[in-house]
Formats: sequence, structure tokens, C-alpha cells
Amino acid sequence: MSNNRRVILAERPRYIVPTANCFRIENGPVPELTAGNLLVRTTWLSMDASLYARVQRVSNQAEPIKLKEVMVGPAVGFVEQSQHPDFKAGDLVSGFWGWQDYAISNGTRLRKLDFGVQKPSYALSAYGASAFGAYIALTTLAPPVAGETVVVGTALGGLGHIAGQIAKLKGCRVVGIAGSAEKCQLAVEKLGFDACVNHSDEDFAKNLMQACPKGVDVFVDTTGGKALDAVIPLLNLNSRIAACGLMATPHFGEAAFKGKYQSTMSFMYELINRRISVRGLVVFDHLRSSLAQFHTEMKAWIDSGKVKPMEDIVNGLQNAPSAFQDVFESRNRGKRLVKVAD
Amino acid sequence: MSNNRRVILAERPRYIVPTANCFRIENGPVPELTAGNLLVRTTWLSMDASLYARVQRVSNQAEPIKLKEVMVGPAVGFVEQSQHPDFKAGDLVSGFWGWQDYAISNGTRLRKLDFGVQKPSYALSAYGASAFGAYIALTTLAPPVAGETVVVGTALGGLGHIAGQIAKLKGCRVVGIAGSAEKCQLAVEKLGFDACVNHSDEDFAKNLMQACPKGVDVFVDTTGGKALDAVIPLLNLNSRIAACGLMATPHFGEAAFKGKYQSTMSFMYELINRRISVRGLVVFDHLRSSLAQFHTEMKAWIDSGKVKPMEDIVNGLQNAPSAFQDVFESRNRGKRLVKVAD
Repeated sequence: MSNNRRVILAERPRYIVPTANCFRIENGPVPELTAGNLLVRTTWLSMDASLYARVQRVSNQAEPIKLKEVMVGPAVGFVEQSQHPDFKAGDLVSGFWGWQDYAISNGTRLRKLDFGVQKPSYALSAYGASAFGAYIALTTLAPPVAGETVVVGTALGGLGHIAGQIAKLKGCRVVGIAGSAEKCQLAVEKLGFDACVNHSDEDFAKNLMQACPKGVDVFVDTTGGKALDAVIPLLNLNSRIAACGLMATPHFGEAAFKGKYQSTMSFMYELINRRISVRGLVVFDHLRSSLAQFHTEMKAWIDSGKVKPMEDIVNGLQNAPSAFQDVFESRNRGKRLVKVAD
Repeated sequence: MSNNRRVILAERPRYIVPTANCFRIENGPVPELTAGNLLVRTTWLSMDASLYARVQRVSNQAEPIKLKEVMVGPAVGFVEQSQHPDFKAGDLVSGFWGWQDYAISNGTRLRKLDFGVQKPSYALSAYGASAFGAYIALTTLAPPVAGETVVVGTALGGLGHIAGQIAKLKGCRVVGIAGSAEKCQLAVEKLGFDACVNHSDEDFAKNLMQACPKGVDVFVDTTGGKALDAVIPLLNLNSRIAACGLMATPHFGEAAFKGKYQSTMSFMYELINRRISVRGLVVFDHLRSSLAQFHTEMKAWIDSGKVKPMEDIVNGLQNAPSAFQDVFESRNRGKRLVKVAD
């Protein structure tokens, strides 16, 4: 306990996607504990796509960090030393202190993992922001009923792989979308999806149609782009879209915003015609109303084996930048985490 | 009472817009009253843009009519003869018997105008489907609160001119969009809009922004297209869109569906980012739940002078086809009606 590695933002991404070269690792002393605060030692980091907003120049989804500052993000660790009345050395906590070995905290946004989390990393996977987003999508934004068909945009994503399992336990036919045959196989065999369609196939739209013989009632959209274009014609009367992400954007740069995809005209037409509801997901909006209920339900689902979190673990803080870039290139299989220490 | 003129569908529109040449007038005998039915004499017809669905080859909004059949649509008239227990000669009724001088009815979808309608034509303007759509848009799909800014897509349209007045009486800043300076002036001077922006101006988007210094909270979208494109950047957090029509479509033909406008990518981005809700309007869906309440409220608003229906009257059944085409070319100033007889 002498060196503190810190992953700082060295430059902003040129176009949305934070590539590994945007970050730099700096070494320095472990910060000294100050009165009323605590020192936390990082064990796990969560690689959330939504953190992209933090490295932009401006964003109205979250406050961007400054250049040379430590990259923020959800983390899990142990309290090493404490002068804070609510925490003691040895407590396992989650927080938002970000990509560094050690951090001083005044307790703000820090949470003791005392709600029965089965293992520490689950605080970031099964109970993290992505899984919570999946829960909100299927309970609040676009709730399905048993027997309906639910399509999940990124079957192996941090949000998608949980969404598929929640839809399944609610008695739905669940059809995933993923970018390779291998991922599709994982979705069906490991996660229990009824079907999964490869969006890299030339016949993607046709294959999706065949996988949804009764049309689509709920679409958990994590990508926009060609997945949305392929789902729109299949949407049933009174269908629902939970807009949870636009992961297709980085792959096409600015072109994505200029006529590559369906225009709003055809989308609005179908929206009226088929009484489609569309609601966007910003997880922060739902913390107060739904986080406690989510923890309770998710704990029961995991304990009973109905939900199996899939974790995709990269070792070493020094690998966080490339592990993060991977998420935008869909290289993850389940929730991407970085293991910093035991 | 010897000749019955009937406007029949002679050919289907080539592309969405039912032009006047799609119709033909036929003369024939007044139909004979049959047992249990009634004979109605038409006095007013309503030229609703939503009737476009009835002349398409296929539609899932409404059942299309067959070639050579009488064009259907909302009508008002007097019962001339009756063998129906619920109606007697002289009753003023509204129904859907369509574009002809006389019709036999078995009473289905026929309604006596006994709910206090101030004058017969109001059954089709102030209390008709367009006005009801405006009411549903602002009470159910996208309700504003006092002090918010409401933008109305077609300020002088059958739906738009009522929507603007409802938003105004709810204490909102109301900004209309129309296609000429003369229409904009009417919207402000006759209908009480706070401002109205001409979408034919080169500076349309900039002018709209200046007319909405606090952004846009509710958009009653009747056109899609460039109005929607101009409104999207102005939408506030938690704003609402009532998708009530796509009148921009006919002006651009198929091109409207292929990249002319913003793509779904940018729209979904803003939808998530600013928590925008979008709900489509199909008036039939709301008849059972809200029609009676609408009649009560609208009657009070008209009696107190808070809503002034604007009627745009064309004389003569023979002019119905061109009066109908006008609506798709935005030539109407308020609710377009055809006066068939006194």
C-alpha cells in the first residue's frame, strides 16, 4: 500500500466513442485520510457504456469530467481506514469513485453492500446500473405480459442479458439480437433466450421476422440503427419500445444521424398507426422510486436461479481503458467488469 | 326530392393524396324507405384528412371503401321519413353516411344532436373528430400545464385551430406553425395564438426558436417533416409529443420516407436524453372513454367564448372532391365543411 494508480482522461474522444488512447495511467502516493472521511481500496470497476457521457466536452445526461481528472464510474471496494461515523475498516462498499486503486470519500454516494448481495462483483453486474436499467425497461417503460414476444437489442450486453432473463421469467417469448453466431448460441444456451438473430447476417431482417411469428410486442432497444429498422415493421398493435441505448451510433459516426436509417416520417407513421409507445431510459430518474424494489426482486430471482448474471471479467486496472473501448465494439459477453484487486 | 346525387370513388389515389379526379358524381333516384329504417337528407359534410385511409387499397386505420361505392365520411342532416323507433321526421342527426344527398340508415352510428350543440355544423367542426382529436391530444396524449409552451403544427387546421385554443385556455404560451403570413396573422388575431411561424420562410427554424424562448414543452404534431425537425431541437426535458398526423407526407411522396428528414437515430437520442414522450392519436380509441366529457367541456368553452370554432365552408355537394383535396394542400382556414343543403 504505497502506490496509487489513477486512470486519467488524457484527451476527449474525437467522435463519441472513448477509445483506449483517451486515457493515461498515472502513479502517485496513496492519498492521506482526512478528518471525517474514509479511505477506500478498489477491487472492482464497472465498464458501463453510459459512462461515455462523462468524457464528452458537454452532455446533458451527466456532468463530464475535466481533462487530467480521474475517470469516474461505479466501483466496489473495501474501506481501509475510516474516520467516518457510518463506515468502519473492512466494510464492503460500492460507490462512484472511479478508476483508481485508492480514493478518499466523504461518504457521498457510498453504499454498504448490506442488502444481501451474493458476491461483491454482483453489486456492479446483477445489481448495477445496467441490470437496473433492464428492470426499469421491463417493469416501467415497456412492460410485457406473459405470452408476448420481447426482442432484446444486445442479447449479450450488460443490460440485454438481464432483460432477456427478466422477460423470460415473466412468461414471454424472448428473441435476442447479437453480432455473431457464437453470441447467439450463448444467448440461447446460457441465458435461455428462445431465439437469437445475428445482425451481421445478410438475411438479418428476414431471420428476425421468422423468429417472431406473432410479431413483436416489446422491444428493448439498446442500439437503434438497423436493429430498430428491422423491428419497426414487426411491431404489433399497442407494442412498446424501451429506448435504452444507441450503441449503433459509434459504429457509423456522424453518418448515423444523416439519412442512413429510417426517417422520423415512417417511424411516426407506424407509431400512430399501431399505437406504439416509446419511452427512453435514464436510470437516474428511477433510483428513488424503484431501486429498493429492484434489489429485493433481483435477489429473489438470483437465489431461485431464475436470473443468472453473466460476468465478463478483465484483470488489472491498467486494462480498464481497452476493456471500456471493447464495450463500444460489442466485444463483451455479459456485464464487462475490471477486477482491480482481491 | 327526386334526384339523389352520390359522390363515388372512381379511382384510387396514385400516392396517398385523394385528388378530386378520384371521385365522380352520379345521379339516381332517392332511395326508398324500407321497414325499420329511416331516410336522412344531408345538410353538411366534414372534410377530414383522416378519411384518406378510406380510399387507399389497404389500411389498418380504417376499412377502405370499394371502387364505385359512395365516399364515406361524417355528415349532418335531417330525418325526412322514419320507420325507426328511435328517430322521427325532423330530427337533426349526425352520422357517417357520407357524400350523398339522401341515405337510408338503420340507425347504426347515427346520433341525435341533442347534447346542446349550438348550431348544426358545429357537430362536425367544434364537436367533430378533428376537435375531439385536439382535445385528446391535450388532455390524454400530451397534456400541458399552465405556463408551458405548446407548439401546434397546423395552426389553421381542423385539429390545430382547436388545439391552440384549448392550450391557450389552459394557460399556456401557444405558438402555431402555418404555411403563409396570412394564415399566421389569422392564428394570432382570430384564434388568440401568442405567435405563429411561417414554415415557408427560409428562416423558419430560427423563427420558431425565437418564438419559443423557453423551449417547447408540448408539440401537437399534425405534419411531421420539417415542422418536427424544427421542433425536436427545442424540446425541453420531460416534453411531450402528440403525433396527430403526417400532413407533410403527401407533399413529398415517397421521398418523405427515405432520408429527407432526420433519422430515427437522432430522434431516439433526443427522446432518451430529454425524456420526451411520444404518443400517437387514433380518435376511435378514445370515443368510449372520453367523448361524453369532451362534449360537456367543449359546450362550456364555446358558451363562455373561450373556444371559437373557425369554419371554412364550401357550398355544394358537387364541390366536395375539390374541397377534400384542398385539405391535403392546406388551403383550408379552420375546419373545412361542405354545405350540401339548408
